[in-house]
Amino acid sequence: MKLLFGQSGGPTAAINASLAGAVGAGVEAGARCFGMRYGIEGFLANKSVALDPLLQQPLNRELLCHTPASWLGSCRYKLADPEGADTADYEKIFTQLEAQGFDGVFYLGGNDSMDTIAKLDRWGTLHGSACRFVGIPKTIDNDLVGIDHTPGFGSAAKFVATSVAELALDANVYDLKNIVVVEIMGRDAGWLAASAALAGAAGGAGPDLVLVPEVAYEPEQLAQAARERLAHKNTLIIAASEGIHTAEGTLFAELAGTTAERDGFGHLAATSGAGRWLASYLKQTLGVKTRAVELSTLQRCSAHCASAQDLHEAAQLGATGVSAALAGQTGVMATLTRTNDTPYTYALGTCNVHEVANKVRRLPAHMITSDGMGVTASFIQYAAPLIAGEPSLVWPEGIPAHLEALPYSK
Amino acid sequence: MKLLFGQSGGPTAAINASLAGAVGAGVEAGARCFGMRYGIEGFLANKSVALDPLLQQPLNRELLCHTPASWLGSCRYKLADPEGADTADYEKIFTQLEAQGFDGVFYLGGNDSMDTIAKLDRWGTLHGSACRFVGIPKTIDNDLVGIDHTPGFGSAAKFVATSVAELALDANVYDLKNIVVVEIMGRDAGWLAASAALAGAAGGAGPDLVLVPEVAYEPEQLAQAARERLAHKNTLIIAASEGIHTAEGTLFAELAGTTAERDGFGHLAATSGAGRWLASYLKQTLGVKTRAVELSTLQRCSAHCASAQDLHEAAQLGATGVSAALAGQTGVMATLTRTNDTPYTYALGTCNVHEVANKVRRLPAHMITSDGMGVTASFIQYAAPLIAGEPSLVWPEGIPAHLEALPYSK
Repeated sequence: MKLLFGQSGGPTAAINASLAGAVGAGVEAGARCFGMRYGIEGFLANKSVALDPLLQQPLNRELLCHTPASWLGSCRYKLADPEGADTADYEKIFTQLEAQGFDGVFYLGGNDSMDTIAKLDRWGTLHGSACRFVGIPKTIDNDLVGIDHTPGFGSAAKFVATSVAELALDANVYDLKNIVVVEIMGRDAGWLAASAALAGAAGGAGPDLVLVPEVAYEPEQLAQAARERLAHKNTLIIAASEGIHTAEGTLFAELAGTTAERDGFGHLAATSGAGRWLASYLKQTLGVKTRAVELSTLQRCSAHCASAQDLHEAAQLGATGVSAALAGQTGVMATLTRTNDTPYTYALGTCNVHEVANKVRRLPAHMITSDGMGVTASFIQYAAPLIAGEPSLVWPEGIPAHLEALPYSK
Repeated sequence: MKLLFGQSGGPTAAINASLAGAVGAGVEAGARCFGMRYGIEGFLANKSVALDPLLQQPLNRELLCHTPASWLGSCRYKLADPEGADTADYEKIFTQLEAQGFDGVFYLGGNDSMDTIAKLDRWGTLHGSACRFVGIPKTIDNDLVGIDHTPGFGSAAKFVATSVAELALDANVYDLKNIVVVEIMGRDAGWLAASAALAGAAGGAGPDLVLVPEVAYEPEQLAQAARERLAHKNTLIIAASEGIHTAEGTLFAELAGTTAERDGFGHLAATSGAGRWLASYLKQTLGVKTRAVELSTLQRCSAHCASAQDLHEAAQLGATGVSAALAGQTGVMATLTRTNDTPYTYALGTCNVHEVANKVRRLPAHMITSDGMGVTASFIQYAAPLIAGEPSLVWPEGIPAHLEALPYSK
């Protein structure tokens, strides 16, 4: 039995825990495990690597669980329509899969990566390949359909909430009115910006306004909301998604003059600048001190502040995907279904990956307050269990230990 | 015995540990403890608060140790020359101190705060006050003279090094040339930017270039250094102080168009923008993907990633200051002298605060590599013990617990 693993899309603090869980299940089943370097794009360029030498050892799999980013490397590469005329990629991929004798391909990623695995499965089915194709979900954006929440989201949410709680204390030290705008990732969905509210849910300092891309805002309306709240307190914390926009659809980031970059899937790859623009606008309008803090890529790579629950689920979903393939499934994504809120319980399983690809799940209306500038108890109940628990790390020389990097292929 | 505590200047992740240590020593000695709200500026406005109700309890002092920012509130307020004509502040302060029967005043802060305590001591001596004035050091910048290193630096350094290690992994996931510029605080001294190098010292991913304000850089020189290094690897991490400048003295932040703001001491209060400018310049010059990450205020408030050694020393220095005052000392600062590098040992004591105030200690030449773009083994030996150990936190509901805030005084 020979299994091939790939990682794709933006990195997270939990995607390597899924890889560790998946390879662990493969090793247990006696399979030989290989990795694509830089996802399917790297596989097309013959960049693959044997994972057994390092990952047969449980200690290395444990270190891998706590290593942020995509250990195998990643890509943003869109395959052509498998029913279309452009068959070159598929012919190359399936020739290699057959020549190297792979029985299963596992692709760890978000909705674009599920598009890749769904297309490989369709081509395989059309052309009678015996190889199985399974998706293993991840994304800090939590915008994947077919699953209660995605691995990577809980760790990013824990870092966001922890940082917002700390920033709120930091901002409140001087006896003067001031506003801190914290810019949080999530270009299309507000799950991660909303998770800033977990900072205040435990009774400590939290955000005063939570702004998400599911709602349209006019700058004057935000200035008015800030003005009202500053009458009663010194410090205002605004948690703002990078994707906030006006009713006309203009991104605040565009107001800031950010050049929009698009990836291979046509998505905006970088929309930063919204927080900086809003902080500057509020300073001019309200005449108070403001500061913009961009959590930037820290929010997806801060493995030192990961959620233990998230890492555990990520590893379980990796193992679930491998078990499904070993049991003969293909064209599926490993999934997690919540069975109870309090106490939080869930069941693992699979869903049809063709129904997951290319869809975006947004924050539902019942999780957003009626004024559009906060989250409801329903969101807190949903998100709180996902940031529970702190991982046990080793910190040689005061820095968290990570698994050694794969060699750089020039 | 009645003691008064104040915090001043920029907050850190360890300044409350010093407060906890100092108040703990006061409580043990049977003293009553009070706090200035918002430093000496708040005391002038009669804003003080009894600390005993909350801080007599060891559990609350323990929570305080892990609460970032200045729990009492802070200020940036410069007292007039005590020998000069403007005596209004001093008369008010000393009238209040006498009326309220304070025996000791403890001011926790950096070099500007030591200026305040030195001036109060001079006025007290000139006018026969029996009150004792003691400085307790803190600053993430590590630029205070008279002490081996300052509380707050170790925790900031640990967060910077940890984040740079994680960002370096995150930046390396795609198979393309790219540069990440991490902007780090320290307007005049490069200690904190240099601490990014601790990320690589343990063998993991670290910065490729470390840029500090002690050295002048021309943009073309940095582009050339980046170009050379990118020939051998995909990803370049540049750790850059916010205070980097050209040989002509132009701040990179000024090239970015940042308006320089100055505080009550005439210091540049905010110089952010250097990283963004450099990332943009390198993108244009080298034609590679670049990203700027500003660690911003996260680096001074990330108590969840504090150094246990730093918190321990901060508390010890607080207690040392109180013991010194109880033993009759005034006009001193609690200090720490390193007695050995490996194993790291140190002695606590006091020094003359008048010799500390208003001086800046910069990164010495022997800690900077000859090309000016890295740090030497001598810096690593100096800094490594300061980031050792992780604090035991409690994380109710997945967020670190902080001591409840003092009431907001409108």
